[in-house]
Amino acid sequence: MLWTKTFIPTLKEIPQEAETVSHQLLLRAGLVRMLMAGVYSYLPLGLRALNHIEKIIRREMDSCLAAEVLLPAWQPLELWQKSGRDKDLAEIMVRFTDRRGRKVCLGPTHEEVITDLVKNHVASYKQLPLALYQIQTKFRDEIRPRFGLIRGCEFIMKDAYSFDRDEAGLDKSYREMHEAYLRIFKSCGLEILVTEADPGVMGGSFSHEFMAPAKDGEDVVLSCPGCGQAKAYQAPGAEMEACPRCGAKMERLNCIEVGHIFKLGTKYSKALGADFLDEKGKLQPMIMGCYGIGVSRLIAAVIEQNHDAAGIIWPQEVAPYQVIVLALDSGDEKIRDLADNFYRELAAGGIAALFDDRDERPGVKFKDADLVGIPLQAIIGKKALQDQVVEIKVRRGNKLIVKPKEEALREIRGILNG
Amino acid sequence: MLWTKTFIPTLKEIPQEAETVSHQLLLRAGLVRMLMAGVYSYLPLGLRALNHIEKIIRREMDSCLAAEVLLPAWQPLELWQKSGRDKDLAEIMVRFTDRRGRKVCLGPTHEEVITDLVKNHVASYKQLPLALYQIQTKFRDEIRPRFGLIRGCEFIMKDAYSFDRDEAGLDKSYREMHEAYLRIFKSCGLEILVTEADPGVMGGSFSHEFMAPAKDGEDVVLSCPGCGQAKAYQAPGAEMEACPRCGAKMERLNCIEVGHIFKLGTKYSKALGADFLDEKGKLQPMIMGCYGIGVSRLIAAVIEQNHDAAGIIWPQEVAPYQVIVLALDSGDEKIRDLADNFYRELAAGGIAALFDDRDERPGVKFKDADLVGIPLQAIIGKKALQDQVVEIKVRRGNKLIVKPKEEALREIRGILNG
Repeated sequence: MLWTKTFIPTLKEIPQEAETVSHQLLLRAGLVRMLMAGVYSYLPLGLRALNHIEKIIRREMDSCLAAEVLLPAWQPLELWQKSGRDKDLAEIMVRFTDRRGRKVCLGPTHEEVITDLVKNHVASYKQLPLALYQIQTKFRDEIRPRFGLIRGCEFIMKDAYSFDRDEAGLDKSYREMHEAYLRIFKSCGLEILVTEADPGVMGGSFSHEFMAPAKDGEDVVLSCPGCGQAKAYQAPGAEMEACPRCGAKMERLNCIEVGHIFKLGTKYSKALGADFLDEKGKLQPMIMGCYGIGVSRLIAAVIEQNHDAAGIIWPQEVAPYQVIVLALDSGDEKIRDLADNFYRELAAGGIAALFDDRDERPGVKFKDADLVGIPLQAIIGKKALQDQVVEIKVRRGNKLIVKPKEEALREIRGILNG
Repeated sequence: MLWTKTFIPTLKEIPQEAETVSHQLLLRAGLVRMLMAGVYSYLPLGLRALNHIEKIIRREMDSCLAAEVLLPAWQPLELWQKSGRDKDLAEIMVRFTDRRGRKVCLGPTHEEVITDLVKNHVASYKQLPLALYQIQTKFRDEIRPRFGLIRGCEFIMKDAYSFDRDEAGLDKSYREMHEAYLRIFKSCGLEILVTEADPGVMGGSFSHEFMAPAKDGEDVVLSCPGCGQAKAYQAPGAEMEACPRCGAKMERLNCIEVGHIFKLGTKYSKALGADFLDEKGKLQPMIMGCYGIGVSRLIAAVIEQNHDAAGIIWPQEVAPYQVIVLALDSGDEKIRDLADNFYRELAAGGIAALFDDRDERPGVKFKDADLVGIPLQAIIGKKALQDQVVEIKVRRGNKLIVKPKEEALREIRGILNG
């Protein structure tokens, strides 16, 4: 794609409203724009990164044999009255009465809707286990939205739900999801701590949080450098503690919660009547698990862990594009043609490339390329024209490789294939 | 994917609440389920069809050099007060005051938000033309939601917006989009009538509607069999007329509006101050166009035009899967293995296949396969085992082809490649 057609409004200055590094870079690299506090528009580069994260998640959900669904945001309040969560989530739940007089809420989450759906169509043990997931927008009336994409009123989550016959089935589903989560975060280029956590208003017996250490996070994790034990705190005031397992002094880390998985048990199936007939013809409540990932806040976590003073350094699988082609003097027709040809060569070779075709000075292009953080920069200027070479800059580490024009594509492919 | 893991709750009976063929088949084939009137959950097969439609749209938007963005549903009411459309759309717009005391509405459409976004980042003629698009959920408080996915409270639309320097630029953008639309609907397997239409509350000077003839549609189009002239009416009471161009008697067709494109001119750019500096340094309002497609209702239109008495006949590009493998006696281990191997062979060959691995009678599997309408059925039963053949049924026309097992994959690939 051409830069001039892509709408990438980069900013030289750090925007005043942005306190955290990820929030600053999200705005400066032209990935998102605030419409109002807690509500963001995703611009083309930000949306591409988001789509790539979703692609990773879908691949791993497939590997768990979970099937994707898309559930409504517009939900009948009565469904929430059945589980009692209309009260638990009263503050953050947007409610209104529609023109037909129906009491409606905007889904802050989807356990009630999915349980109701499965209840109506699964009747026998033969149809279990079943796992469904959704990647979609949720709405929460946050009184204090903050940190850009970390806590907002409108955000994107992945939620998977497992339905099993018994506890052993739930254990298996939970373990598979846990493993899939580790693969997802690894593919996103994230270092993760896993902590046992309080299920809170979700209910159930057991839960794990997936925490991405970050300079600016909402959560504090005390982690033991000795035995790996980790414990999460919501409030940032948590004190240093001794490790309950080995007694060593625990390390304090500011974190972003990127995933949370729950053994829900029968909380929702009992409340909403999601039963099945077992092998003996006896009615039993389904045993449920629920597995969430904060998809939009993952972008922020990835940036927190992958940047330097000049800008973002995208992990390859999340990067909006793999290569950015810089035409250093786009006023010079020969250089422009050379860059344009190389860009087309990349595209024809199936490599997602962005072509900075703007009529801007080289300094502006270099700065913006570092800021938006595409993994490889293919630099084409006077030198390329004279010596028939392409300079390839690897954004992570800022290493420069010079290759004859005809070898450059192969070199790029080699680097991208690791 | 395995049928038993996919959640495809097919129905034998026609659901009472469904008046139209597409609504009946959407429910019977397990594509969607109603949560409340006007609000639907997309189940795995329905979501896959939806994703394939979105893929077609993205390809054609790319060809127009339009860049994708994702805009908020949660919008400040004050933005709508600037264009005056808070009044025009008062009835269908969901409004609430959030916990911070902000007046918020749920976006019934996005002209105000996109104009505000572009206004803040485009200042010069050098940055124009620009085209952006979004595929996302919109909310309308419909008093009379109906026909399943045709008119709902929560639905998915594609909207593209073009920003040009002058009328000649808008003409070019409009023409390119018009042509892209014809390609999109063709890829979706739809026959389309294009009519000149009233821009209505969207404003602007000029608009075209893209109408899919269907037995059960909301709109009436009078079409001239002689010269091709077509005219659309919202109310179903339109009388037969003589063609204004050639005088012939016009034909009356029940239609679904699947696309609508508008020359908006300066309505939104003037209201929201989206100006640019022209070549002479003079401030000018941007000239806008807007190009909508009803993405979720497209599924209904595709089904209206592509079905028979037994069920859906998916056009290949929209189909949830390309091939369904039927293991006719899945209790017989040898048949089950043969079917399973063939399913794996398809998957390894990059062909999207669904494996009906249920413990059900052949009659149930045949009926369901016809109902869900996957283009090709690969039937594996006793005959396949005895004669080492695969029976391939082409859903469109219900033609049966018998091929030796080792030739079946090539035959399928041949049919799919047309």
